[in-house]
Amino acid sequence: MELKLLRVDLSKGSFKDHVIKDEEVRKWLGGRGLGAYLAFKEIPKGIDPLGPKNKIYILTGPITGTQFPESGRYHVIGKSPQSGILGDSNSGGNFGPWLRFSGYDGIVMEGMGAKPQYLSIVEGKPKLHDASHLWGKGLVHTDNKIRKEMSAEKGGSVLGIGPAGENMANVAAIMNDKWRAAGRTGLAAVLGSKKLKAVFVKGTKHPEAVDKEAFSKVAKEKHEKVKNHGVTEALTTYGTAVLVNMVNNIGAWPTRNFSAAVFEKADEISGETLAEKYLIKPVGCWGCIIKCGRLVRAKTENYDIPEHESPEYETIWANGANCGIGDLPALLKINYLLNDMGMDTISYGNVLGTAMELFEKGKITTEDTGGLELTWGNADAAIELIWRTAHRDGFGDDLAKGTLALAEKYGDPEAAITTRGMGLAAYDPRAMKGFAVAYATSNRGEGHLRSYPVTWALLGIPKSIDPLKENGEKVDLNIYQQNLFIVIDSVVCCKFNGFSLDHTDITDALAPFTGWNITPDELMETGERLYNMERMFSVREGKYIKDELPKRLIETPIPEGPAKGHTAAHADKMIKEFWEKRGWVEGKPKKETLERLALGEFTQYL
Amino acid sequence: MELKLLRVDLSKGSFKDHVIKDEEVRKWLGGRGLGAYLAFKEIPKGIDPLGPKNKIYILTGPITGTQFPESGRYHVIGKSPQSGILGDSNSGGNFGPWLRFSGYDGIVMEGMGAKPQYLSIVEGKPKLHDASHLWGKGLVHTDNKIRKEMSAEKGGSVLGIGPAGENMANVAAIMNDKWRAAGRTGLAAVLGSKKLKAVFVKGTKHPEAVDKEAFSKVAKEKHEKVKNHGVTEALTTYGTAVLVNMVNNIGAWPTRNFSAAVFEKADEISGETLAEKYLIKPVGCWGCIIKCGRLVRAKTENYDIPEHESPEYETIWANGANCGIGDLPALLKINYLLNDMGMDTISYGNVLGTAMELFEKGKITTEDTGGLELTWGNADAAIELIWRTAHRDGFGDDLAKGTLALAEKYGDPEAAITTRGMGLAAYDPRAMKGFAVAYATSNRGEGHLRSYPVTWALLGIPKSIDPLKENGEKVDLNIYQQNLFIVIDSVVCCKFNGFSLDHTDITDALAPFTGWNITPDELMETGERLYNMERMFSVREGKYIKDELPKRLIETPIPEGPAKGHTAAHADKMIKEFWEKRGWVEGKPKKETLERLALGEFTQYL
Repeated sequence: MELKLLRVDLSKGSFKDHVIKDEEVRKWLGGRGLGAYLAFKEIPKGIDPLGPKNKIYILTGPITGTQFPESGRYHVIGKSPQSGILGDSNSGGNFGPWLRFSGYDGIVMEGMGAKPQYLSIVEGKPKLHDASHLWGKGLVHTDNKIRKEMSAEKGGSVLGIGPAGENMANVAAIMNDKWRAAGRTGLAAVLGSKKLKAVFVKGTKHPEAVDKEAFSKVAKEKHEKVKNHGVTEALTTYGTAVLVNMVNNIGAWPTRNFSAAVFEKADEISGETLAEKYLIKPVGCWGCIIKCGRLVRAKTENYDIPEHESPEYETIWANGANCGIGDLPALLKINYLLNDMGMDTISYGNVLGTAMELFEKGKITTEDTGGLELTWGNADAAIELIWRTAHRDGFGDDLAKGTLALAEKYGDPEAAITTRGMGLAAYDPRAMKGFAVAYATSNRGEGHLRSYPVTWALLGIPKSIDPLKENGEKVDLNIYQQNLFIVIDSVVCCKFNGFSLDHTDITDALAPFTGWNITPDELMETGERLYNMERMFSVREGKYIKDELPKRLIETPIPEGPAKGHTAAHADKMIKEFWEKRGWVEGKPKKETLERLALGEFTQYL
Repeated sequence: MELKLLRVDLSKGSFKDHVIKDEEVRKWLGGRGLGAYLAFKEIPKGIDPLGPKNKIYILTGPITGTQFPESGRYHVIGKSPQSGILGDSNSGGNFGPWLRFSGYDGIVMEGMGAKPQYLSIVEGKPKLHDASHLWGKGLVHTDNKIRKEMSAEKGGSVLGIGPAGENMANVAAIMNDKWRAAGRTGLAAVLGSKKLKAVFVKGTKHPEAVDKEAFSKVAKEKHEKVKNHGVTEALTTYGTAVLVNMVNNIGAWPTRNFSAAVFEKADEISGETLAEKYLIKPVGCWGCIIKCGRLVRAKTENYDIPEHESPEYETIWANGANCGIGDLPALLKINYLLNDMGMDTISYGNVLGTAMELFEKGKITTEDTGGLELTWGNADAAIELIWRTAHRDGFGDDLAKGTLALAEKYGDPEAAITTRGMGLAAYDPRAMKGFAVAYATSNRGEGHLRSYPVTWALLGIPKSIDPLKENGEKVDLNIYQQNLFIVIDSVVCCKFNGFSLDHTDITDALAPFTGWNITPDELMETGERLYNMERMFSVREGKYIKDELPKRLIETPIPEGPAKGHTAAHADKMIKEFWEKRGWVEGKPKKETLERLALGEFTQYL
């Protein structure tokens, strides 16, 4: 099968079709894999991520927007302004499918507009519109306004950036359908630099399988498998925040910028409490049966939070436990505003938690913050600083640069709990040992969606393994998931399939859809190829090649709770094992590894 | 004496000096009077207030920045984008004096810059600077940054606009010294249209009296008079918010958009409570002995409000009683954010109160507000909408246009409690009858600072008159104060002198300072001249000529409290009497009146 991309030259205001041929699709798939490959070939080494030579790839994959379960997603790729290496992020909602229905499988944004614009693609016809009237506006306003201008009350989808992206904040997120985010690595700032405010897509050009009947039969089977899996029910009932109590209970919930791993107010901000008090109904992405999204609304004594989707588990953690905020309505407000301003909720919680630690240490003072006392749990300051960060106003300008830049500016780089410059997620690798590998070896940094030790540590998938035990199996499982997840991100569907389905299920569906005589082994080798190829971007860039964990996690034991006394000192050994099993040396693929994976063209960069 | 103005052509980036000769100064004084005269001559009839032909006059007057008590103010004049007639506003702080010390008595902003700029005048030398890096930023950041760039840790003063002015909101305010506002009539939007972000002034060119010794002696006497007056002590102790309980106690405190006149939570948000709980210390403008300003700081369970000045009585009313918000820390937060975003706290409270009424009536819904429930007392919505109004985001765009435009858009113009399109202030004219004349006949609309019935209704100045009684004396006192206050706004000093000093005291000081052989009668005739001349702007423009009160106040009785059952039906009679005493017909000066006041050149516009 072929994939058709629309190339948009924003400097010239011109369009060009680019067809990715069948053999290329089979080699790189779509989404994350194809995007990384194109980014490597087209984005020159060393360029400014916010300059005209960076590009943004907004891509679906072979089975996006089809009957295959949970196929309503898309992937974004580009050079990250936050890390300076390859950045990428994935989002659900409705944008991915509608992009395909519009007649294109992906969009490449090139060059740099002189004034704000938005792109529309309707039934195969692209058009650039003036967006000066939308510049500076939040996502809700932007989405509503574009829908009005495109006469699209129903159907179609809007992707866009908020003030944070416009102002090129590293913590900005690309948003779609108002409440869905391709959040991490700051690619929204790249769209901001290109003055591309939004993309609207709509059409009726549904992707078709080569063998429709066979694909349809397989898709239905896989649907049943997802539907009947235990994790599906938990996600439908409590959303991703079902993890709050689970992770906190094993003492692995990073609290107050990783200074502890049990948060005393976890239950008050858990998925259960959210469902009990504020949930209107579960909502899903396009075609989704899991519906982990939460439509919520809260009017309390202190907060008026309009109806909106989420917050997710990671959002609750980053802005809650990580900042000492145990007030659920405050977190709903924070989430709602971060979404509307177009900010990555994890990155904002990361940098705010770091700022609070530095405030506690006296390294940041009210002189720096504009008078706000950044004490743990200060929800009002968290809310005010959302607006200031989006507009880079006062102390918001410091926060906009992200946790590592903040910690460096205030003379305490170790207060930034990051890998590859990206703030970590809601699992302490001292208490869930597998995360040491997940975080350290993720190509884009951080990495809770690049492999997911939660599956074996809490969900028994593929089997239960004690989270506190160090063992080699965890390295193998991390590698397997990294290869599987990059396939999922490239075909493109949802990782929550990964609880109930494995690579054989994806192969079952991919074969009749594409017409490829593809085996599970070929698919997994493709995953391995893509993972190695991604790493080569860092190798060529000469940045963040070596896999390592933050010093604090290696040296400082968890002070209390079930994992009391544990550190991530095991990381070193596991990372070495990981390199060996990957055929890498010090984070760099060996020549023979690349050649084995048909990546010979990349050996010149070693 | 002469006054020297700097004319800044923002289109060309050029400067020109303009000297106002002694006889012109004697005829128009400075500040408000001179500004109105120049505006009439230089701003063509019918032009767009946000177009390049509008001008902004930032003026001091003969005795600004001298030993005369409370002379630390300046006046701003231009065509108002909110009313379409002459707009003007006055502010304290340190800007006025430092402007004079910089070597100029005033600045005229003309034309329209292509990109954001700020102006500096240091020791007589003006310079325009790029301000792209300040565009979109709040006043605190802007003030700090410009002081850094101008190497002015101490001394000098910054005037500027925030995002609200940049985005040309009618409710925007010109701010100086961070917390001081030339708030009303939306002239900040005009600076925004001209892309003029800020003005920095500094220097050592102190204005000198013609007869230094005599002036110094008089100034000291007047200082003593101000110092020893009873009102001064009350203002020092409780600030302007000393009025909260006083006005509420007589049932004249407009509550929930003038639907009542007693607010049940008045005491909780009074000057006394403010002083008891959050006051750090009283602060004054340049050279001030009254110090009605309040340096405050609050960290409560729900709010973190950095150290800042205010809120004033009017701010507490407009956002408190008028919106049903009885939570003082919330009002401090609202005030702090409105100041930083550069918004007029009265206009914001006006439009928010109107929106809340329309929400209660079902004319505005959550569909319009972006999901916020605009119930009375909803402080969280009030806070969120500050940011949205400043950036004209979603429903904020409706609020930005002001109360009259909002009420018209949602089909209920009578819900806008305005005169000449300007939302009224913190005194109900149904319960303080004199305010019927004050509001209806104010040239710029609204008008609590154009005459001030509080003096006789509550302070016994010049004598006590029952606020609920209708009598002709109130018309006379309004006219006297209108003429006196325009003199005060033109010489330029503070109206709080008006409690302890009268026109003879100002004459005493003006004579030795200017060298004019001026009498109290000439000064008061000058006030009358200026008041008539101001009105001629409306006459020529053909807009808002007739003096009238909002229908609701005339027809609907106050439902409860000490003034229960009272209306402002008396307004009609009093306004007619006012016209007669002024020598006007239906709001328009008669030919002979203009001629008597040496305004013959204006008769052609009748």
